[in-house]
Amino acid sequence: MDEKRVFEPAIPEHLKMERTRQKRVSDRYTPPHQSYVARFKPSVREVAMAFIGVQYRGEKPAAVDGALVRIMESLMGMGAAGHWDRAEYVDEAGYVNLVTAAYWQSREAFESWLESSPYRQWWDDEARCHDGIGYFQEIFVPRAEEFETIFSHRHPEGVSHLAECMSEEVLEHGYWGSSRDRIALSQVDDLEPSGSLLPDFGSATMAGRVKIVPQQNLCVIRSGQDWTETGPTERDLYLDDVLPPLSEGMDFLRDEGSKIGCYSNRFMTLVNQNGKKIDKSYSLSMWRGLAELERWAESHPTHLAIFVAAIRHYSRLRDGAMLRVYHEVSIVRSQDQHIEYINCHPKTGLLKDTYQ
Amino acid sequence: MDEKRVFEPAIPEHLKMERTRQKRVSDRYTPPHQSYVARFKPSVREVAMAFIGVQYRGEKPAAVDGALVRIMESLMGMGAAGHWDRAEYVDEAGYVNLVTAAYWQSREAFESWLESSPYRQWWDDEARCHDGIGYFQEIFVPRAEEFETIFSHRHPEGVSHLAECMSEEVLEHGYWGSSRDRIALSQVDDLEPSGSLLPDFGSATMAGRVKIVPQQNLCVIRSGQDWTETGPTERDLYLDDVLPPLSEGMDFLRDEGSKIGCYSNRFMTLVNQNGKKIDKSYSLSMWRGLAELERWAESHPTHLAIFVAAIRHYSRLRDGAMLRVYHEVSIVRSQDQHIEYINCHPKTGLLKDTYQ
Repeated sequence: MDEKRVFEPAIPEHLKMERTRQKRVSDRYTPPHQSYVARFKPSVREVAMAFIGVQYRGEKPAAVDGALVRIMESLMGMGAAGHWDRAEYVDEAGYVNLVTAAYWQSREAFESWLESSPYRQWWDDEARCHDGIGYFQEIFVPRAEEFETIFSHRHPEGVSHLAECMSEEVLEHGYWGSSRDRIALSQVDDLEPSGSLLPDFGSATMAGRVKIVPQQNLCVIRSGQDWTETGPTERDLYLDDVLPPLSEGMDFLRDEGSKIGCYSNRFMTLVNQNGKKIDKSYSLSMWRGLAELERWAESHPTHLAIFVAAIRHYSRLRDGAMLRVYHEVSIVRSQDQHIEYINCHPKTGLLKDTYQ
Repeated sequence: MDEKRVFEPAIPEHLKMERTRQKRVSDRYTPPHQSYVARFKPSVREVAMAFIGVQYRGEKPAAVDGALVRIMESLMGMGAAGHWDRAEYVDEAGYVNLVTAAYWQSREAFESWLESSPYRQWWDDEARCHDGIGYFQEIFVPRAEEFETIFSHRHPEGVSHLAECMSEEVLEHGYWGSSRDRIALSQVDDLEPSGSLLPDFGSATMAGRVKIVPQQNLCVIRSGQDWTETGPTERDLYLDDVLPPLSEGMDFLRDEGSKIGCYSNRFMTLVNQNGKKIDKSYSLSMWRGLAELERWAESHPTHLAIFVAAIRHYSRLRDGAMLRVYHEVSIVRSQDQHIEYINCHPKTGLLKDTYQ
């Protein structure tokens, strides 16, 4: 059976470079199960990913819904995002966070949106400091050779909505270090971080606003789960056996991640346009570097518990499994990060480690 | 505290080569806990490792003790082994196997022993085919750049008895792929296997004897546990929490290892000179290649269960842990393997996969 399997390399032809660094596995390697990557047109030189948050505690202040509408309208108007979705979660400080993720398929498209949409004016307005709620924007513009995706099913999520198609089965997955091997730049670069996070409090008239002066090669991962298509049996297996270790691992990263190089982790549930939760979740986490993410994933008991639960799930359900999982990992240069917080509590996002 | 830790590279100065291949981790990496490697004199160009087995089922035939004495006497006489120990186990076919492991610190020392001791004559004697018991010898002569060791404590076992000393804390451990990074040859070579195992039944007058025609870059690992120094609390924790998943993983490799490239696995208990079991065990396993061992170790639920149990053990006991674990991994060229079975059942050692 195995002899019939044909694999595509995860790195597309147009991003191949003369290697100075090896893949972790040999040409003899074949993956234990099928996975797919999003294929972007060669003309896609970079993508923009904006995570725009609204934060409040207790009863929902009047400003919240207005802000969400402003964000949504700006994303759907001039220079519209190629894709966006919204998720929510209650963080460790008890605040509700409503996070809009939006994607553009070039730096130009993103910058053109920033110029032409009402978003920037709204964001920069001093009034945002007096709305009685918190805001954040975490924006990354990785180049095509600086990010990778992987999917259990040929079903797009997140940035892959901007892709031309999904690949056939790819070769480089199913082993620790395969994320690195799918990032084209790893052919010639160790992707190591440098510098450190520093807050920039700006001017006194903008009290409450904090920009983060970025570090080189920040690692950002969106890692998602979609159980919308599962039947009742599989759904129960997911909720009973996979979700508990997943939640525990996400809590660990949120609460103790700093010790191991994870600056921030949000484990969120997607909502529909009416704000109602749907059967999809994702974690958004930011790491000092890819190496730190690799170490946690491959050796920390909290991630190994998730990994083993997922293996068990897929081996129970075999080809019938409809639980879809995916991730997108980006290694972002300092000049391609745009991170700012307005009146957010100090454990929000990168503020936590910046203030430590 | 971490700032005080100083690490040695696992690869000694005299085995450094101009790299054409990278280590898996960056210079920023620091290991999560301390480990040590055996340091051999630069004059040690290779070591010889002989695993000599005696096999029987049911009541012990008279020939067994005589054979053990012959093996022991030959190891202690002319050209004596630098170190030897003995272990026993009952295999999946219900046979008792008594395995003597012997080590020499050069090819010359080993060959001189072969020539001068009574061993070879005894082994080659046609009478061995008619003793009513089985014998095997699995001999490997890896070069210094083809094997590595790692120890939780600075306490020698196996091949490290031939070493000059134990290192200080080494850098390259605590991540998947670190075994490869400790093997000096990995600086310039992918250590990939080639060829396949074939039986050589020899002449009809030697019926019952099977030599295995070796493959290139067979991977051999001795991985051991020593709970002789544990106090009662730690001993119970080891026996109750670590040993069960360890046994389960060893059974998996023994019974289902063929599917994943593990030709053979013996999980054995060491015995003293009177044949009485002591509180030390080790598994000896042979693999198609290092890559197959890496994949099992880093991603198979049976090994991850062992790994997580061990992490838990050491984090419970902290610096007070007296459970000692170690391994030695060799990648052996075909010309440095000498493997022969006499009247062994067909699931013994490499026979299993050779016959499949």
